[in-house]
Amino acid sequence: MPSAEFESKASVDVHTHIYLPTYVEMLRTRKAVPRVVDRNGQSRLLILPGKDEEDSPDAGRSFGSEYFDIGGKIRFMDNHGIALSVLSLANPWVDFLPPSEAVALSRIFNDDMEAVCAASGGRLRGFGVLPLKAPAAAAEELARISTLRHLRGVIIGTSGAGNGLHDPALEPVWAEASRGGHMMFVHPHYGLGNAAYEGTGHALFLALGFPFETSVAIARLILAGVLDRHPVLKLLVAHAGGTLPYLAGRLDSCVGTERQIDFALKAAPSEYLKRMYFDSIGYHTPALLALIALVGHERIMFGTDHPFFPPRDATLDLAACLWPSPQENYAAIDDLPAEQQQAILNVNARRIMAL
Amino acid sequence: MPSAEFESKASVDVHTHIYLPTYVEMLRTRKAVPRVVDRNGQSRLLILPGKDEEDSPDAGRSFGSEYFDIGGKIRFMDNHGIALSVLSLANPWVDFLPPSEAVALSRIFNDDMEAVCAASGGRLRGFGVLPLKAPAAAAEELARISTLRHLRGVIIGTSGAGNGLHDPALEPVWAEASRGGHMMFVHPHYGLGNAAYEGTGHALFLALGFPFETSVAIARLILAGVLDRHPVLKLLVAHAGGTLPYLAGRLDSCVGTERQIDFALKAAPSEYLKRMYFDSIGYHTPALLALIALVGHERIMFGTDHPFFPPRDATLDLAACLWPSPQENYAAIDDLPAEQQQAILNVNARRIMAL
Repeated sequence: MPSAEFESKASVDVHTHIYLPTYVEMLRTRKAVPRVVDRNGQSRLLILPGKDEEDSPDAGRSFGSEYFDIGGKIRFMDNHGIALSVLSLANPWVDFLPPSEAVALSRIFNDDMEAVCAASGGRLRGFGVLPLKAPAAAAEELARISTLRHLRGVIIGTSGAGNGLHDPALEPVWAEASRGGHMMFVHPHYGLGNAAYEGTGHALFLALGFPFETSVAIARLILAGVLDRHPVLKLLVAHAGGTLPYLAGRLDSCVGTERQIDFALKAAPSEYLKRMYFDSIGYHTPALLALIALVGHERIMFGTDHPFFPPRDATLDLAACLWPSPQENYAAIDDLPAEQQQAILNVNARRIMAL
Repeated sequence: MPSAEFESKASVDVHTHIYLPTYVEMLRTRKAVPRVVDRNGQSRLLILPGKDEEDSPDAGRSFGSEYFDIGGKIRFMDNHGIALSVLSLANPWVDFLPPSEAVALSRIFNDDMEAVCAASGGRLRGFGVLPLKAPAAAAEELARISTLRHLRGVIIGTSGAGNGLHDPALEPVWAEASRGGHMMFVHPHYGLGNAAYEGTGHALFLALGFPFETSVAIARLILAGVLDRHPVLKLLVAHAGGTLPYLAGRLDSCVGTERQIDFALKAAPSEYLKRMYFDSIGYHTPALLALIALVGHERIMFGTDHPFFPPRDATLDLAACLWPSPQENYAAIDDLPAEQQQAILNVNARRIMAL
């Protein structure tokens, strides 16, 4: 059993995705990205903008059961010492749908997530999704989600209602999030600087484009004063905060010496980062050292990003083998003081997410 | 005298720019960016692509003597405890010129830099520039630069000969750089993701776009195998490495699980970062902690980025006042162990750059 290596960790994984059964059904009916297609007897998931025209049988990702099978998720958890997972629907959520459809489907997906978690024997909790292009309805759905016993806030993309998280249209959502104390898990989808990654497969899109996208979205949210208007807003920033824990000092300096614009913030940008929450998905200890030095270890929660970043060897049994991504993230934590390890692996998440 | 506060530091500043007199002359004759124009009795420097059409008197930057006056540079050094500066021509160097002009002007600017440094009473050394769009001539000029006694390698932009630092066209330059042990100081100019920063002045372009650009250039150089072909290449990466010291683990992981492309590297990407050099311009201690944890403090050298990031208050006497940017970068170093401080402030640069 591969589980022995990590069993003692009893981790809580706050960044782990699933395409719910109802969501997969919707993806299979679509004619444009995001969608699931069958090619050469294999299902493929096409989610990246601009990739739909690629007729290559390799376009998109192989869409195996690791993307939607709850039993496989539990086995992955068992294999990697994860006691409890807070599932989130994988990108791109409902952001690409017309507002009215997004409103209706969000309710269905959120009820589906609740049902999946409720049937898990205590192993799963979930984030909901919001129809952000219909902000008033999104605020209502956010309030309703808090009545679903296994849900803990929502996952949202960086584009918000289409114009970023600094968009004034999102005010009703931030207001309800603040009022109800709902965790808002901010996650990238589109990548930033994608033209610059040509010829590198998905490697730089994921390694750089994703954290760049997240960094811009959070920086703009800060500069737009969202956290001055909603100081108790709970934000969980994906992938160890993108790049902002490294660039926070530079951001403070550039904002502080900017002459064209007075952002009129109540504090330096980095001060708002110190009020946010972060997953531990940095893949090496140096990143965690910077993050801890900036925000403290009490705000960092373990994550795996499963089922993305599968092992390179496509012949492995994905539900049985050890995955490099969680191993790398465990290894990054192993070098920290024991108290910080426990906090990041499970104590923080149980406290912060009321698990 | 403001100097007292920092006098004991006796720092070496490896990241400090100047527009040489011959370069300013060239900028004043140009009709497109980069250029210097006079508007409302004030000189303004327009260097950002796409900003030339802006007729506003605020377009570009106020182009005061801090950009070209050597006496002002020395006063800045005195005020901020800097014993020795390694000057580099400020962006965009000669990258925008037709190759033949770039070849001729590089020689002139490099000779000008040598003359300026030679006349400084031992306070200045310099990086040269290369006509990268003419790689064979650039390699020749690089060899010639090593005969100029006050020059120490060259500053190069991320675009190389126009197609990035992973461009095979640059092989002659890397070959000569390796052969001669010349330091190659990699610096951003264009920004990455610029459309996403609209409405934030220069703040996010500089805070995020610059380090993103540097990160992509260095990551692509690594993935293209440049350092496998030229393992002793000396690269100095601007702005504390952009974001790569934070993202190095993620980069390793994404490259390690990429299925479409086998990069066929001899080592994980982060291993190549550990062979590079970095300035200390991270503006806060958390960034330096990550950088030190990744590459060791022996590869990090103090920098100020003067005369960019001037104080926000435009009424201050820039040659007399204390600047926030170097103060912030000193403060970031002040929290490190004493041995690391001395190494970063001066010991490393004197050893690495043979000063």
